[in-house]
Amino acid sequence: MQASPPLLRYQSLAERVATAIAAGTLRAGERLPSVRQTCSAHQLSPATVLQAYYLLEARGLIEARPRSGYYVRARIGSRLPEPEMRRPATAQTALDVSDFIFEILEAVRDPDVAPLGSSFPSPYLFPLDRLARSLGASARRLDPRSTVTDLPPGNEELRRQIALRYLAGGADVAPGEIIVTAGAMEGLNLCLQAATRPGDLVAIESPCFHGVLQAIERLGLRVVEIPTHPRDGIDLAALDAALRQHPIRACVCMLNFQNPLGSLVPEHTRRALIALLARHAVPLIEDDVYSELHFGPNRPLPSKALDTAGLVMHVSSFAKCLAPGYRIGWVAAGRYAERVRRLKLSSSITANIPAQAALADYLKHGGYENHLRRLRATLAAQEAAMVAAVESSFPTGTRLARPQGGYFLWVELPAGSDALALHRQALAQGISIAPGPIFSAKREYRNCLRLNTGHPWTPRIADAIARLAGLAHACGSADGRA
Amino acid sequence: MQASPPLLRYQSLAERVATAIAAGTLRAGERLPSVRQTCSAHQLSPATVLQAYYLLEARGLIEARPRSGYYVRARIGSRLPEPEMRRPATAQTALDVSDFIFEILEAVRDPDVAPLGSSFPSPYLFPLDRLARSLGASARRLDPRSTVTDLPPGNEELRRQIALRYLAGGADVAPGEIIVTAGAMEGLNLCLQAATRPGDLVAIESPCFHGVLQAIERLGLRVVEIPTHPRDGIDLAALDAALRQHPIRACVCMLNFQNPLGSLVPEHTRRALIALLARHAVPLIEDDVYSELHFGPNRPLPSKALDTAGLVMHVSSFAKCLAPGYRIGWVAAGRYAERVRRLKLSSSITANIPAQAALADYLKHGGYENHLRRLRATLAAQEAAMVAAVESSFPTGTRLARPQGGYFLWVELPAGSDALALHRQALAQGISIAPGPIFSAKREYRNCLRLNTGHPWTPRIADAIARLAGLAHACGSADGRA
Repeated sequence: MQASPPLLRYQSLAERVATAIAAGTLRAGERLPSVRQTCSAHQLSPATVLQAYYLLEARGLIEARPRSGYYVRARIGSRLPEPEMRRPATAQTALDVSDFIFEILEAVRDPDVAPLGSSFPSPYLFPLDRLARSLGASARRLDPRSTVTDLPPGNEELRRQIALRYLAGGADVAPGEIIVTAGAMEGLNLCLQAATRPGDLVAIESPCFHGVLQAIERLGLRVVEIPTHPRDGIDLAALDAALRQHPIRACVCMLNFQNPLGSLVPEHTRRALIALLARHAVPLIEDDVYSELHFGPNRPLPSKALDTAGLVMHVSSFAKCLAPGYRIGWVAAGRYAERVRRLKLSSSITANIPAQAALADYLKHGGYENHLRRLRATLAAQEAAMVAAVESSFPTGTRLARPQGGYFLWVELPAGSDALALHRQALAQGISIAPGPIFSAKREYRNCLRLNTGHPWTPRIADAIARLAGLAHACGSADGRA
Repeated sequence: MQASPPLLRYQSLAERVATAIAAGTLRAGERLPSVRQTCSAHQLSPATVLQAYYLLEARGLIEARPRSGYYVRARIGSRLPEPEMRRPATAQTALDVSDFIFEILEAVRDPDVAPLGSSFPSPYLFPLDRLARSLGASARRLDPRSTVTDLPPGNEELRRQIALRYLAGGADVAPGEIIVTAGAMEGLNLCLQAATRPGDLVAIESPCFHGVLQAIERLGLRVVEIPTHPRDGIDLAALDAALRQHPIRACVCMLNFQNPLGSLVPEHTRRALIALLARHAVPLIEDDVYSELHFGPNRPLPSKALDTAGLVMHVSSFAKCLAPGYRIGWVAAGRYAERVRRLKLSSSITANIPAQAALADYLKHGGYENHLRRLRATLAAQEAAMVAAVESSFPTGTRLARPQGGYFLWVELPAGSDALALHRQALAQGISIAPGPIFSAKREYRNCLRLNTGHPWTPRIADAIARLAGLAHACGSADGRA
């Protein structure tokens, strides 16, 4: 597997422009230097400059105006402000949300429903043909003994490839610490079981990935919800207070492009988070399935690079960045590695063995970096398109977080809007959404919803957003009249 | 998929002879009618008669004597009597066995260790090349949308093929009741979770598959152990008494070729078992991964054929009969189907999607029945060889159950023998065994062990049995001296 390559010239240029926009050096509506000017200023070819501008356009930062040039787009949040962080009651909660969540999510299965509420990106974004070649070849070459030797921790070459990828990101993770799982959801379940017993208390984000809520409910655990900022992620002061107040046994977090918010925990905060949990000897279960989907040039610093106490259980998978349906994930489980390995054996013995070998083969030979580059650019462009559509059509008072990676948009409708009613009305028109309450132990975030930007921006999706905007207007004003 | 075909002529003849032996019409040491006599008596060709005699030889019922003919072998249990059923204390037990079991089983992973303690049959017994073709083709043809449409309950064609197989066995199971899982171990976990909450009481067999003990421990359940007969399986009177005495929430059973005993519950007993549990409204979780490995001509009657209350959760997989390492199993979950489906989603989302399609393809086109016929004959011959070796070498006072399917032999050493000590001594000589205590919540069966007959009868395996016999002699006499 390749290490993360150094930035290409066009990427460097795009990053400089993006930084200038973020810093306010280049302001919304301002024209960028012409391609010719930029070529001579930076000694680059016109092709390189254009590639950089295309990238910035895909990320929604600039726009081309015919016969005029490139302009800085309206700044992030300038039309729609970012949602504010909410403070859920910090009482301990025994969960009773799973059936409710299942009912809401059932609609997403229907291929005739516009999948704005889906948890999955479009399967057409992935190199399924190339993977099929790896899978067929690996199955034909499979050593029959691997049905025993590849039992947990799992296929040795796959674990080595995963370790190499950690290394490229700046983290030293030994292959022996990595346990291959049947996807990240199983990994998450195993980590929770490794760290807790039924009845124990777990700190989670609010809002929080509904799968975490369901796993916690099933394992008979209770939760303390920690406020989580739409841009910066989990609130450390609140977590600190909760750790002092409650006998918390584990903290479940998504540091990178959190589901549903899309937030990205800044590097200084993640350092402080890991130090804080280490002081309390509480393990961090990091559910990290989106980190490869960063729109900026660099992968976020892995938490494993900061973990000196062996308390980080890093859960990830290939489902969202490479191989949906292959159900291959892993846990780098620190001091819990042996316990997780045993739990894996008694949960489902092993992950699919030909698929483990196939992914090891693909990571070595398949061109993963090139696939990821294309995927990131596509997701960035799709997000930009949906942000523009929401900005221009949703009711005044709507707030919008704009993630720098992943494929979710968190939308806060005006106060009084009811996302559950919106869900029902949208579904009647063949559109799914993920209403806010499925991301909360107490069914909060009633006026929020999560939109999926992981599907190509087609007229069908554009139409779905337009209809949704119409419903959101009606639902807000109906509520106003009530 | 083919329905179970009618018996071929040679199979019918073999079955008549086997019945005559079981009934005592033909006695141990008696000569069978010559091939010529049999041909004319039954109007069969010599080839057909010889094929029948080969089958009976493979099943260990008859033996060829050079230049003399075929003779009935020493009857089952005539040299070594069958172990007797034990009665574990019926107190409720909270489990604490998992780490102990893992330590014992770790040795099985080493390919240099003779795998008498393994839970797996030899991977060389399976059509891995043919499966690889199905897997490669299915992956290439995979509809990208199947990554969503094949979410639980799972691939529609695979579930239809499984339902057809139930139908062929005499059970009407709708495809909609079947949930595809990542193997039977996951299925077992899901069923336990569907029927219980932490702290609940579950009835299990004694001795019992160690994976059940581990799953129950992990889920925080408690057990009542029900005595189980080496030939006839779970003791109904004891189960009845336990059901009256304790608030049992589920009963976990293996009706077909139980692990570790190899017992096969007779048809009248399985009818009575299902009726008994129905009277108490207690679900039966049937762990049934060996039923395809019957040595006799007919598959045992599926419990689902007897279940009118929807209380049978039938758990099975392809791991032991077709596709090790593919991790595709299923649950036919009766009235618990929707609950199991949801638990599957929040446990590991879905089973590997290309592998589901591959197995559906193999079941339709791969020649499953032919593979199974060869596999059954091979396993029967391997069992016969190991039984003969144990009979002729193990200490006087050894008892031996002789299963009519599967690939396990349950051996009871003379009282006072210590299978845990034997395990350590054997391992030092490069031989693994599965000592009795790993099959018991209270670490009973100290003088018992399970041997794996699922590997070809090679000089290496023969030598391992010979060495084991030597150790068993020493261990018994050492204990006698102590």
